[in-house]
Amino acid sequence: MFDFDSFYHDDIKTATGRWTGFPAYNFIGGHNDSSMVPVEALRASADRVMSEHGRRLATYNLGDGPLGLRSLREFIGCALEARADMPTDPDNILLVSGSLQALDLVNETSLRPGDIVIMEESTYGGVISRFQHLNVHIIGIRVGADGMDLAHLEEELEALKAQGKAARYIYTIPTIHNPTGTIMPTANRRQLLELASRYNVPIFEDDCYADLIFDEVRPPTIRSLDDSGRVIYCGSFSKTIAPALRVGYLIADWPFLSRAASYKTDAGSSALEQLILADFCPQSFDSHVERLNKHLRAKCDAICESLDKNFGTTAQYHRPKGGIFIWVTLDKSIDILKLTDEAAKEGVAINAGPEWSLGEEAGYQMRLCFGYPEEDVITKGITKLAEICQRHFGLPQQINNK
Amino acid sequence: MFDFDSFYHDDIKTATGRWTGFPAYNFIGGHNDSSMVPVEALRASADRVMSEHGRRLATYNLGDGPLGLRSLREFIGCALEARADMPTDPDNILLVSGSLQALDLVNETSLRPGDIVIMEESTYGGVISRFQHLNVHIIGIRVGADGMDLAHLEEELEALKAQGKAARYIYTIPTIHNPTGTIMPTANRRQLLELASRYNVPIFEDDCYADLIFDEVRPPTIRSLDDSGRVIYCGSFSKTIAPALRVGYLIADWPFLSRAASYKTDAGSSALEQLILADFCPQSFDSHVERLNKHLRAKCDAICESLDKNFGTTAQYHRPKGGIFIWVTLDKSIDILKLTDEAAKEGVAINAGPEWSLGEEAGYQMRLCFGYPEEDVITKGITKLAEICQRHFGLPQQINNK
Repeated sequence: MFDFDSFYHDDIKTATGRWTGFPAYNFIGGHNDSSMVPVEALRASADRVMSEHGRRLATYNLGDGPLGLRSLREFIGCALEARADMPTDPDNILLVSGSLQALDLVNETSLRPGDIVIMEESTYGGVISRFQHLNVHIIGIRVGADGMDLAHLEEELEALKAQGKAARYIYTIPTIHNPTGTIMPTANRRQLLELASRYNVPIFEDDCYADLIFDEVRPPTIRSLDDSGRVIYCGSFSKTIAPALRVGYLIADWPFLSRAASYKTDAGSSALEQLILADFCPQSFDSHVERLNKHLRAKCDAICESLDKNFGTTAQYHRPKGGIFIWVTLDKSIDILKLTDEAAKEGVAINAGPEWSLGEEAGYQMRLCFGYPEEDVITKGITKLAEICQRHFGLPQQINNK
Repeated sequence: MFDFDSFYHDDIKTATGRWTGFPAYNFIGGHNDSSMVPVEALRASADRVMSEHGRRLATYNLGDGPLGLRSLREFIGCALEARADMPTDPDNILLVSGSLQALDLVNETSLRPGDIVIMEESTYGGVISRFQHLNVHIIGIRVGADGMDLAHLEEELEALKAQGKAARYIYTIPTIHNPTGTIMPTANRRQLLELASRYNVPIFEDDCYADLIFDEVRPPTIRSLDDSGRVIYCGSFSKTIAPALRVGYLIADWPFLSRAASYKTDAGSSALEQLILADFCPQSFDSHVERLNKHLRAKCDAICESLDKNFGTTAQYHRPKGGIFIWVTLDKSIDILKLTDEAAKEGVAINAGPEWSLGEEAGYQMRLCFGYPEEDVITKGITKLAEICQRHFGLPQQINNK
């Protein structure tokens, strides 16, 4: 047999494991609640677009060019105006295969090994692993109740400047920050822009959870407050409509977007999914998202209540302001990597802090996704997790959910 | 304004241009004939899968894990057994966003700057540009009526060995080679495997046009003739069902596939398109492809006839054995880059040889796609191209189509 093991270069990634299905208590991944997929409306849209536009599938990108389906880009431009104060020209929108492809395109356009990037010290694990794979130097900024700590950011920008260095961009998730669930207030957004301007750094604003706000009013995007063209922006339909539909969008002024588009060499993202969204969204996006948020808020309440009852003071968290996950800081005596392993053995899957954070507390932090499991699974799963934790670490001392 | 021009690293790609729509006579790109999209059957499939599986869209990869929808992988495994003598375990199939993503995954898994790859000297332009972008050294092998010239391949393998070097893999399109439209005979496939074994090189078999054969019997795949696990294989539904559906597949034994899958960090390819194909294909793939091939054969006849009438001896070609393109060698006095530019100004788009070939004749060769334009457009477009050529190069001396 050909010996692939000795074929690979030294930097080869770890192999993907065989798929064994979902665990019984699945608190990882960005899956959503299957009961919330607007199946009937999407089905009706699929039927309409197949009969009206089916023949267009014969041409790559449906004949609308490399930016993707124009009618969907028009919807996105209008929706961002209505929902986030950001009217957007469809020609500044590139449709991509989920916001993950947007991350890759921005990185390919901007980063080379040895470059410096700045991000919230806790952030989406897929961003951290991408930066590590690209061999860029990461500077993590502390995150508080208002998102990125801007005093800390200023210190780091100043320190870089003193060394004659500069960051390639500041990556931020300002609205429903992943994993902390915070929202950066408008005043902070302006201050962030002021810093970015003073130190001449672009900003990459990842807004893919921004539609999932429970109670507060969505603030204007950072990009909408900027007039210098330095803000690159991405969003997604994965979290609002359905994760398995791979449709996201990258937004930037043309000097950046035209370069990023040249790295998109996949002959277009899935056209049928774009067509269906372009049909579904103008009528139904707002009402669907409102319904979804009510549902997610109830699940958020359920997981908070369950954490309180089962973990008591052993688990600290800020109630997320939206989204599908909660960031939990456990007692310092708990080794989260060990807890993650032990829980996995008993069918409870959690994200260990170090995957999602470079911060000092990551070793006893965890991210729990409550979007996918149903309420009774949440309750049972958190109880089980507390029991496992108690068995291995002696904490929580008492489990009150019994 | 933020100055992106001075922000970029030196190796930044050329910007994508503004989209201006398709030219009147479009002989480029792998688009297909819009009349041949099986719209009604796909519509019925979309309706069925939305009602049966719609809720599964809430989970990334539909809950089937990183390889993608299992039922579609099962169909592919059976279809390859029936159509190309290659029964394939669904666990050795990774669904990807078109065969272009397969190329990227294989390259990320295998290639680093300075590596050596071997390919047919004329090949798919997207492969050449990928290799160039990766800074790998390309060795081109001459292509004849039976595909890759294996004597030339052996020379190059021996020359590398003499230098103490080795190629990372041999990339080949053995069935309906792009751009020459040739088919490598079974005996040659065995000989290629023997060489690959003797020099211990993997083979990457790109079979994405292999379903589009006009008259001949499809030979067994190279991978099916191998028992060493060295053949990596990819295919696609873009050319058979619809280009805008982004569904392709990468096939390899697990030691390679598990590594390649780890570079697929996009949280899955478009699930709805996978579901629709999994519903449509078992009933309709074979009959649809048979109908499509008849249609494409007629268009192939039309472009051949039109080339003969308009270009006469100024244009030489081998009639393609299938597929959607024809590779034409013009008189040596014709500068194909100039002809391409002049033709573009008059609404005739062609692929210039140097984009698709490293061979000595590339400067007066062109690739014409006949899949997309309708027959009368083919006829008018080729006549127009001959007129433009005559005006600028004095050849063809006489245009007989008048």
